[in-house]
Amino acid sequence: MDKKYLEDLLLKMTLDEKISQMMQLSPIFFKGTEMQGEITGPMEELHLTEEIIKNAGSVLGSSSKKDMLQIQEAHMETNRLGIPLIFMADIIHGHKTIFPIPLALGASFSEEIVGEMARVSALEASASGHHVTFSPMVDLVRDPRWGRVMESTGEDPHLNSRLGAAMVKGYQGENLLEDHTRLAACVKHFAAYGAPQGGREYHTVDMSMREFYQNYLPAYEAALEAGAKMVMTSFNVLDGVPATMNKWLNRDVLRKELGFSGVLISDWGAVKEVINHGTAANTKEAAKGAVLAGVDLEMMTECYITSLKELVESGEVAESLVDEAVMRMLVLKNDLGLFEDPYRGLKVSERTGDILSARNRQAARRVATESAVLLKNNQNILPLSTDQKVAFIGPLAESKDVLGGWVVYGEKSDAVSIYDAFSGKFSETKFVTTDYETISEADYKRAEDAAKDADVIVLCVGEKSEWSGEAASLATIRLPEAQYELCKRIAAANSSVVTVLFNGRPLDIKELVQNSEAVLDVFFPGTEAGNAIFDLLTGKVNPSGKLSMTIPQTTGQIPIFYNELRTGRPKTEQNAGEKYLSQYLDIPNEPLFPFGFGLSYTHFALTDIKMKKEIAVGESLTVDVTVQNTGECAGSEVVQVYLFDVTASVSRPQKELKAFQKVYLESGEKTTLSFILNEKDFSFYLPDLKVVQEEGIHHVFVGTSSCDVKSFEVRVVR
Amino acid sequence: MDKKYLEDLLLKMTLDEKISQMMQLSPIFFKGTEMQGEITGPMEELHLTEEIIKNAGSVLGSSSKKDMLQIQEAHMETNRLGIPLIFMADIIHGHKTIFPIPLALGASFSEEIVGEMARVSALEASASGHHVTFSPMVDLVRDPRWGRVMESTGEDPHLNSRLGAAMVKGYQGENLLEDHTRLAACVKHFAAYGAPQGGREYHTVDMSMREFYQNYLPAYEAALEAGAKMVMTSFNVLDGVPATMNKWLNRDVLRKELGFSGVLISDWGAVKEVINHGTAANTKEAAKGAVLAGVDLEMMTECYITSLKELVESGEVAESLVDEAVMRMLVLKNDLGLFEDPYRGLKVSERTGDILSARNRQAARRVATESAVLLKNNQNILPLSTDQKVAFIGPLAESKDVLGGWVVYGEKSDAVSIYDAFSGKFSETKFVTTDYETISEADYKRAEDAAKDADVIVLCVGEKSEWSGEAASLATIRLPEAQYELCKRIAAANSSVVTVLFNGRPLDIKELVQNSEAVLDVFFPGTEAGNAIFDLLTGKVNPSGKLSMTIPQTTGQIPIFYNELRTGRPKTEQNAGEKYLSQYLDIPNEPLFPFGFGLSYTHFALTDIKMKKEIAVGESLTVDVTVQNTGECAGSEVVQVYLFDVTASVSRPQKELKAFQKVYLESGEKTTLSFILNEKDFSFYLPDLKVVQEEGIHHVFVGTSSCDVKSFEVRVVR
Repeated sequence: MDKKYLEDLLLKMTLDEKISQMMQLSPIFFKGTEMQGEITGPMEELHLTEEIIKNAGSVLGSSSKKDMLQIQEAHMETNRLGIPLIFMADIIHGHKTIFPIPLALGASFSEEIVGEMARVSALEASASGHHVTFSPMVDLVRDPRWGRVMESTGEDPHLNSRLGAAMVKGYQGENLLEDHTRLAACVKHFAAYGAPQGGREYHTVDMSMREFYQNYLPAYEAALEAGAKMVMTSFNVLDGVPATMNKWLNRDVLRKELGFSGVLISDWGAVKEVINHGTAANTKEAAKGAVLAGVDLEMMTECYITSLKELVESGEVAESLVDEAVMRMLVLKNDLGLFEDPYRGLKVSERTGDILSARNRQAARRVATESAVLLKNNQNILPLSTDQKVAFIGPLAESKDVLGGWVVYGEKSDAVSIYDAFSGKFSETKFVTTDYETISEADYKRAEDAAKDADVIVLCVGEKSEWSGEAASLATIRLPEAQYELCKRIAAANSSVVTVLFNGRPLDIKELVQNSEAVLDVFFPGTEAGNAIFDLLTGKVNPSGKLSMTIPQTTGQIPIFYNELRTGRPKTEQNAGEKYLSQYLDIPNEPLFPFGFGLSYTHFALTDIKMKKEIAVGESLTVDVTVQNTGECAGSEVVQVYLFDVTASVSRPQKELKAFQKVYLESGEKTTLSFILNEKDFSFYLPDLKVVQEEGIHHVFVGTSSCDVKSFEVRVVR
Repeated sequence: MDKKYLEDLLLKMTLDEKISQMMQLSPIFFKGTEMQGEITGPMEELHLTEEIIKNAGSVLGSSSKKDMLQIQEAHMETNRLGIPLIFMADIIHGHKTIFPIPLALGASFSEEIVGEMARVSALEASASGHHVTFSPMVDLVRDPRWGRVMESTGEDPHLNSRLGAAMVKGYQGENLLEDHTRLAACVKHFAAYGAPQGGREYHTVDMSMREFYQNYLPAYEAALEAGAKMVMTSFNVLDGVPATMNKWLNRDVLRKELGFSGVLISDWGAVKEVINHGTAANTKEAAKGAVLAGVDLEMMTECYITSLKELVESGEVAESLVDEAVMRMLVLKNDLGLFEDPYRGLKVSERTGDILSARNRQAARRVATESAVLLKNNQNILPLSTDQKVAFIGPLAESKDVLGGWVVYGEKSDAVSIYDAFSGKFSETKFVTTDYETISEADYKRAEDAAKDADVIVLCVGEKSEWSGEAASLATIRLPEAQYELCKRIAAANSSVVTVLFNGRPLDIKELVQNSEAVLDVFFPGTEAGNAIFDLLTGKVNPSGKLSMTIPQTTGQIPIFYNELRTGRPKTEQNAGEKYLSQYLDIPNEPLFPFGFGLSYTHFALTDIKMKKEIAVGESLTVDVTVQNTGECAGSEVVQVYLFDVTASVSRPQKELKAFQKVYLESGEKTTLSFILNEKDFSFYLPDLKVVQEEGIHHVFVGTSSCDVKSFEVRVVR
């Protein structure tokens, strides 16, 4: 429909109808749902009437296509103006075919890979009737205690920006209106949700404005530039004001500075939670705060419904603000063509073949192989040879708990375990499954016996899916002690240990690394977990993932991230041993594994690195790099370009990722890559939030990990 | 001298003489010092000549009175205009008679006690020729990994403010000019040095401006209001700019907003270190940055000396800025009467009786008893009775390493150990000293045997002095594992364990607490350690200290502090067990011991707590509390008043200390205390840094610990 249609529609709407349009509820409240049981209680609790629900704007997290169809049919029958519902859901890393968790997707360092996840997710979810996914989460994360690092692509503004944008494009495609295999994307969580105090979920966020603009804001901006239709507010405060009623954040930064004109939705219950934050005394003040801050859609609480009318009638809230919010809802629905066809994706028989298809599984398998990180491989114990006797030991040797958290629609029963993938594929395969937390002496014994009999042990350890994700913060980022003990005992029995680590966050894994010859970090690989691990361990696919988040030595090293500032007393190779340095007494300053790190079964050489020695302010710098696969097998490498502004008006990070490219090369093959660093890459925020590029010496680092680089000096002149 | 004298003096000074006045060097550079050996190397390194040193402004950390006298004599002979040197030193918690470390002094919750420490320190240090002490450090601290929490009075703005001011008054007295038993105080470190990233010394500080103004700035302000003559810059960046060249921080905040007109000195080498921070390319830029930011005195580097002249001559730095700095130096010297008598405190025979006198020792003993915190006392195992057989076991049973860090002039040999104080004072005393880190099986056995034979064990465990303080950050805040093991084994042998804990920071002590019937946290008590512990363990003095810094459950709970903000999803008694709360999966939200906590051998009842139920904005609130000693023995209690602004424009802390008073009561005695909360106590900073008091419901909490309070509702109306 054209704009005029929407404007006319808005003119026809009563204030009640408008306000209801700003409400999102779960399916149980709606007529037609199969889930609908006794909802009098919940309805009363939210002060809802059938009349209100008739005019609701959106449905959250429907369970099935059939359900959605029936809800929409019932709705279209009763809605006075024929405004369709829009269905939104959490499709985080796959719908039915589950892909690796986002933290692993970050490790792919590949827009193509991340985009493929989003494309297949949209394909399946749209075929199931969903219109919007609450993804990507582009929150910068630096604290692995926070369980929700699982849902981020990591600690780097540049990486998060590019991968966030790629996800948006993968979900939305080129033509959201016409292409019904697509979903609208909702960028979250605005803003800085990824920096909770102590890594404790929902806790206070505090940082300087400069830090916010410099490191936290860019990925939201990039995802919006990629065209994301929606934004979700975050649970945290910023500068003491909850994001969900933060006018500066949403009106000044999001709307004006970032130019976002789409729907801003609250996170679950976040409008009402401002009362708990202590910035509203009651639901009425909460509603007022949120609507003044520009929140268009309230998720799962009743503040707008119960108070907005009174606020408008009393003049405390201009009706134009309500109109603005409702118009954004109408535009979003129109962008998806719902006025023409309220049943987009809802025809029951349509495109069922798109779900959990062999092609989708194949995509998930490929993405998972690109997202695992090889942390150690002593004496090339990997890849395994099929004539070996292999013992698979540990809690995850046969488990299907390989999907990771935040899986609403995928099923463990569809997942391929390590057992499923490896059984019978070697001259001998043995499986010893243990508990995650408590391992009996008998089980240790079984494990040790199996280890002794094997040529190589694949130790399958890690977290349960539910140990990371939302509301799964850990004070101490360790596995249950039994798993370390298992590793130690196995290694004592037979040192040929290959550890496959399942995890939703960087963990304290020093002992595992010490007691293993090889460590493959697979995070949670998704539905095709076993097959992807098979591809990697056997060398069918060469590992190519790079850590998107630093692995600390221990909990007490948190926060540690590669792009930290220097200090006045940096520890160097030269001064090591001195006392008055920025250091700990008990551990080194270096992390266990740095950002951008990941091994391969082959080797790559970076040669002929060329760039100008001097550029003018505003001029771009081209960095040419020849990369050659100098090893015996094919593989992919991620060439990374970092920048360091040696002297500036503010202290600049010792290294900042500004460009990267993943390239596949056959053995012996070489290619030349070109990276362009532009004015923006050289620019930074001053304390007054002005952006400047300054003259002076810069170091350009080119390498294959943040800690394995060659350095080049470039002078910027005026 | 009068102002005119100083002005005339300034007019007579050459630019070289002025610049040299802005330099502080250690004694080895000066003629007359006994330390002077081959200093050609250091002199060349700093580009110094004898001519420059002749005009130097100040001497840092002289070792002896005789040395200082000779330096000053030589100086007065050669200095063209007869401008005396000023001697500054680190007199942190006592000069020769060492008092408890500042973190323990914080636990006294007593301005009188803290002031007594400062008075005695000044008495001794001034008798030794010192003029200025680099104390108090009022940096707010929330991360026990940072070793320098030892030197702070803790985590609370109100407590730090009052104790910082008390220290300043204790050092400076009523009349610094006339009273030669006093020192000028130097408040440090400006600003926010106490918030290094990851608790790693000298690391990046980042916080919102609102947080800075609300929580970090007040204690500096209070110490300046108390009249502190000097301020020292901090090593860290703030908003990306090193404090030492941060013009906003020093000119706008310190000079204009806080109205400070005294000498601003850099920390050791901090001017030159801005090059490492990356905000100056060389010493010239460093000098320019520091002088533009208003740093008057450069400690131990040569940036001013080598570059200021050129900067002035080229017009990059106005000579008026140099004049301003030099005039502040002259004023400071004049405030101490050094123009009339350059030998203040330097006469060799004068006041030697003031050093390490019985009175001073007695003061240190009393202060130490007031600064220890009784954390646990099951079944009143304490106080001990002298007819008991007591075994003193552990690394600190006989050690004289009880002074703590940052002791420049005090001697361990003067210290009273536990052995010294307790030996022979019970029906039987036995001492088993172990190593701090590695305890042999034979030593465990000796300890267990001693434990079995005793009625009660006093387990003397903790840190070495050098494990905390500057450049002593720990990633993991644990004692060596052997000490936990020792405690466990002792407790298995005899459960009557009283643990005396020596520490420079909050430590992970859960296992010690579990395996002990009583725990007395003495921090580092100073010269009179053993005697003070004797007084406390025997009940001669009743413990009355209250934690000035939260003790976390474990390293992974850092940062945890009592005045944190609420969240949108707080965990409560009612909702415990739910998933989507602000919490960790593996530990509770509560600390092991909260701020303000500390037990006594007696009991106190707070009754008749009275206050208005409603006040107007701007009106003060008087809180009357009757406190009675309801137990069997005399003792002191700290009555604490906290405020909570339930709903405000910004999220306010769940509790903020606004008033406290320590009161001594005989058994059965009672008294009524009055606390006044004024407009400032009810006010807070908005994101735009305006200060407001808002109407609405407030909770006033009255109690004896941040977690043991009674709540009262007060409505503020307009």
